[in-house]
Amino acid sequence: MYKSKELSDIVNEHISKLNFNPSVPRLYEPISYVLGLGGKRIRPVLMLMSYNLYNESVDEIINAALGLEVYHNFTLLHDDLMDNADMRRGHATVHKKWDDNTAILSGDAMLIMAYEQMTKVCHSQHFNKALSTFNDATLGVCEGQQLDMDFESRNDVTTDEYMEMIRLKTSLLLACALKIGAQLAGASEEDCESLYKFGEKMGLAFQLQDDLLDVYGDPAVFGKNIGGDIMCNKKTYMLISASLLAKGPISEDLKRWIADSDAKPEEKIPAVTNIYNTLGVKALCDEKIQALFSESLNFLDAVNVPNERKEELRKFAHTMMGRKY
Amino acid sequence: MYKSKELSDIVNEHISKLNFNPSVPRLYEPISYVLGLGGKRIRPVLMLMSYNLYNESVDEIINAALGLEVYHNFTLLHDDLMDNADMRRGHATVHKKWDDNTAILSGDAMLIMAYEQMTKVCHSQHFNKALSTFNDATLGVCEGQQLDMDFESRNDVTTDEYMEMIRLKTSLLLACALKIGAQLAGASEEDCESLYKFGEKMGLAFQLQDDLLDVYGDPAVFGKNIGGDIMCNKKTYMLISASLLAKGPISEDLKRWIADSDAKPEEKIPAVTNIYNTLGVKALCDEKIQALFSESLNFLDAVNVPNERKEELRKFAHTMMGRKY
Repeated sequence: MYKSKELSDIVNEHISKLNFNPSVPRLYEPISYVLGLGGKRIRPVLMLMSYNLYNESVDEIINAALGLEVYHNFTLLHDDLMDNADMRRGHATVHKKWDDNTAILSGDAMLIMAYEQMTKVCHSQHFNKALSTFNDATLGVCEGQQLDMDFESRNDVTTDEYMEMIRLKTSLLLACALKIGAQLAGASEEDCESLYKFGEKMGLAFQLQDDLLDVYGDPAVFGKNIGGDIMCNKKTYMLISASLLAKGPISEDLKRWIADSDAKPEEKIPAVTNIYNTLGVKALCDEKIQALFSESLNFLDAVNVPNERKEELRKFAHTMMGRKY
Repeated sequence: MYKSKELSDIVNEHISKLNFNPSVPRLYEPISYVLGLGGKRIRPVLMLMSYNLYNESVDEIINAALGLEVYHNFTLLHDDLMDNADMRRGHATVHKKWDDNTAILSGDAMLIMAYEQMTKVCHSQHFNKALSTFNDATLGVCEGQQLDMDFESRNDVTTDEYMEMIRLKTSLLLACALKIGAQLAGASEEDCESLYKFGEKMGLAFQLQDDLLDVYGDPAVFGKNIGGDIMCNKKTYMLISASLLAKGPISEDLKRWIADSDAKPEEKIPAVTNIYNTLGVKALCDEKIQALFSESLNFLDAVNVPNERKEELRKFAHTMMGRKY
């Protein structure tokens, strides 16, 4: 069996060897740039680990893993354009370094290349099932991104709606990575479903934790500015919960901060954080994360392979959540 | 065998029955809108006609045909955004009716839906080959669009480069429609290749004719404003040829019109058209169209099925080129 680090090295090696048609440099340079910015390669590694539960020859499905990583990077490219984000992984985003049209078209080409890579595992007798799983996930991610944008202009988003949005936008791809790995290995329907749920619940826990770190994280470790979600009134699980729990003057206070479009970060962020603390929203969110993470591990436990083969995935899940194992 | 009109009716009926997830209306309404604007459904009809050369059960591959039409409409949606076009088929483009982000994300979802439809014919033993053909074409179309945009800021585009650009941007999808139809019907490699070449050459002839009609067409029949290409100095086969052929004062005259960004349409269009006439560029383009169209029909002749089965495709090709048959 492979260690996750060995698998991410394999993924990175293959990504560095991807070939692009040199006669259309303007189309492929941004793609090469985006794929070269690094990242943890979580999704392809999860796919290979899932496959590796059943089969040692991870090389046989490496293209499916690459396809998933190319797809993920496509979503970052187009999302950054839609969000008008300046930076990604410490570098200028494609639409800033080049222009909007380049970001649109190079992104489109990446989405097609994702399918092209996926198609390279068509020798597998299980390819068709895996391709359907991929289609469901990729379309779901678009739906999640649309809901995320819709929520910006709505003030009545519920926690259920928020959880469904992050399920689509974040969890689906982790779930699909694990399911495709198992499908390509010829695992049972039950195992495929358990691994899917393992990824789905882990993704929810991971996103809620990311939201929590956006408020309570150590800036040096978190890698993003603290309080970004608070500044743009992002309807996270925490903000929605706070709005529900707040009564009287605290509620008025919270509403005032949300309405104040000229608020200074150094005032608004500590003030809203303080409201979260008063209402116990951090603990609430922490509990939810813990429950989802436990649930996810239960689904991994249910997978019908010897326990020691699942150790690496268990460890990886803990590392993703920034926890000791 | 089916008539092309029957096949386009079948395609339209299936398009009207496509289902969209109602819980994310903002994502799917623009898709439904674009697919509802009509169009001649040339690509899916070509695919079904090609399949129908060998097999009567066109229903079996209808989803592949829909996938191709959804893909084609995706390219129109994103191209209109990149070109900042206001109108498409007499209606507001998606980015004008909604906004840029809607056009980006709904387009992305359409591209995925194209693959989703294509995947529905995965019961076919020839599916993997067809999917590879589709991947090659869809990526090639992106390359063609990139070259088209690159050419806008270049003054040294050759006719060979122009022909390669329109091959990628226009021909590939017609060629791929015909090839996929044959592949899914289990036709020989030779037939698949002949049908591909038939579509490729026909696509080139069709695009050159479209360029020619942009200058010489009857506005009432052509459906677009005459002279659009001349006004934006589009490096068409005609403009590149004219630049090569023009000498002395005519060359100076042409250069002046190209450089004059404030030129009035009612002056520039007849002036450049007059230069084309003087240099015999219309006849040159006409000859090229005729040669390509003949070549395309030769490839159809080479397809190894009884001649009478190819009549409908021959007729369709003539109709596409606006010629009597």
